[in-house]
Amino acid sequence: MELMEALHWRYAAKRMNGRKVPSGTLDTILEATRLAPSSYGLQPYSVLVVQDATQRERIRHAACNQPQVSECSHLLIFAAWDAVNERHVDELIALTAAARGLDPIELEEYRQALRTAVRELATSEAQHRWAARQAYIALGTALIVAAAERVDASPMEGFDPAALDALLGLEQKGLRSVVLLALGYRDTEQDRLAGLAKVRRSKERFVVEWAGPEGCASRSAIAPQEG
Amino acid sequence: MELMEALHWRYAAKRMNGRKVPSGTLDTILEATRLAPSSYGLQPYSVLVVQDATQRERIRHAACNQPQVSECSHLLIFAAWDAVNERHVDELIALTAAARGLDPIELEEYRQALRTAVRELATSEAQHRWAARQAYIALGTALIVAAAERVDASPMEGFDPAALDALLGLEQKGLRSVVLLALGYRDTEQDRLAGLAKVRRSKERFVVEWAGPEGCASRSAIAPQEG
Repeated sequence: MELMEALHWRYAAKRMNGRKVPSGTLDTILEATRLAPSSYGLQPYSVLVVQDATQRERIRHAACNQPQVSECSHLLIFAAWDAVNERHVDELIALTAAARGLDPIELEEYRQALRTAVRELATSEAQHRWAARQAYIALGTALIVAAAERVDASPMEGFDPAALDALLGLEQKGLRSVVLLALGYRDTEQDRLAGLAKVRRSKERFVVEWAGPEGCASRSAIAPQEG
Repeated sequence: MELMEALHWRYAAKRMNGRKVPSGTLDTILEATRLAPSSYGLQPYSVLVVQDATQRERIRHAACNQPQVSECSHLLIFAAWDAVNERHVDELIALTAAARGLDPIELEEYRQALRTAVRELATSEAQHRWAARQAYIALGTALIVAAAERVDASPMEGFDPAALDALLGLEQKGLRSVVLLALGYRDTEQDRLAGLAKVRRSKERFVVEWAGPEGCASRSAIAPQEG
């Protein structure tokens, strides 16, 4: 399966060679990201794309000075909603009605169910955390599609969210940066991680076959790891 | 690109027909999940696989009685570490040394850097939240690989984590359930969502081209949506 090859090929490149990702390939990665699923389909995040080198230098200062911010082709910033409100629900209902040729009134029950679900995330902080998790599904999608296109992708959590949000004016947009993704091409000469064997827990330690509290022989497999 | 077709084909099936996913296909999905990237490569989660129908019925009671828990072929439970500690770091260092044929002493600097990073997540709750986000990258990977294999995958956040953790004895394993994924095949006759048009925000609303605070014409595109 080609996807498995892509997953073996990829790694989090720490150094990139500055080569540009063709716009068609970038579009494919962004389109896949847009199609990524999210809870209720709310897509509670946006993706900022930064190609401009000057802007990336500014961002690098807020991102632990990581070289791939400068050396990548495009930097993606996954920014999750700082809160989820009824207006977001109403927008989704309007979008759903339009996409499916329905009168929004036919979705009234669904609207109320969504509003209730959002209210159950009692604080805006809880809502943001939930939104951030959804953004990570999209991040996973971007990573794998980039690999399938043989574009290197370096995910980065090492940055100062408050500084980056201020730099990008995200607060006024109701967004908070949660994770970065540098897209580009690995610099195999400068990256000391290039070509190293991939490190993963074995399947026996990672996957637990659960057949109930009595008959689960492999259950003990997680005990030495996480117990 | 086949992956884009797969992303258009997939949807979160709410009803499944009980047909079994072949074990080779399941292995591919699990292997891709295992290969998913995570911050520092810590893979701070495990994936429980539940095929047994009786166990799935029990789980369904803790999962808002969602029918796909019964009707799926296999239910995956993504369970993130309840905390991250120095032993986890040490295990990663040992695994890395083994995979790359190194003496662990050569990774001592890296070990200390990782320990510092973990300590910066000051509380176990913060550590768990960080672990949960990583699990969502793996969830995104599982979703897309399942779609590429034309296996339906229904992600579920609607469950009672405390009840599920108790049922599965996760607390003793240092794990907490964060998201479920039912794998199987859509029941197009019973699922009222089957065949409906996919709903996503337009690219213009989802993607923001950032060229700086001055010259960002499309920046306003997010204002009506999230502002």
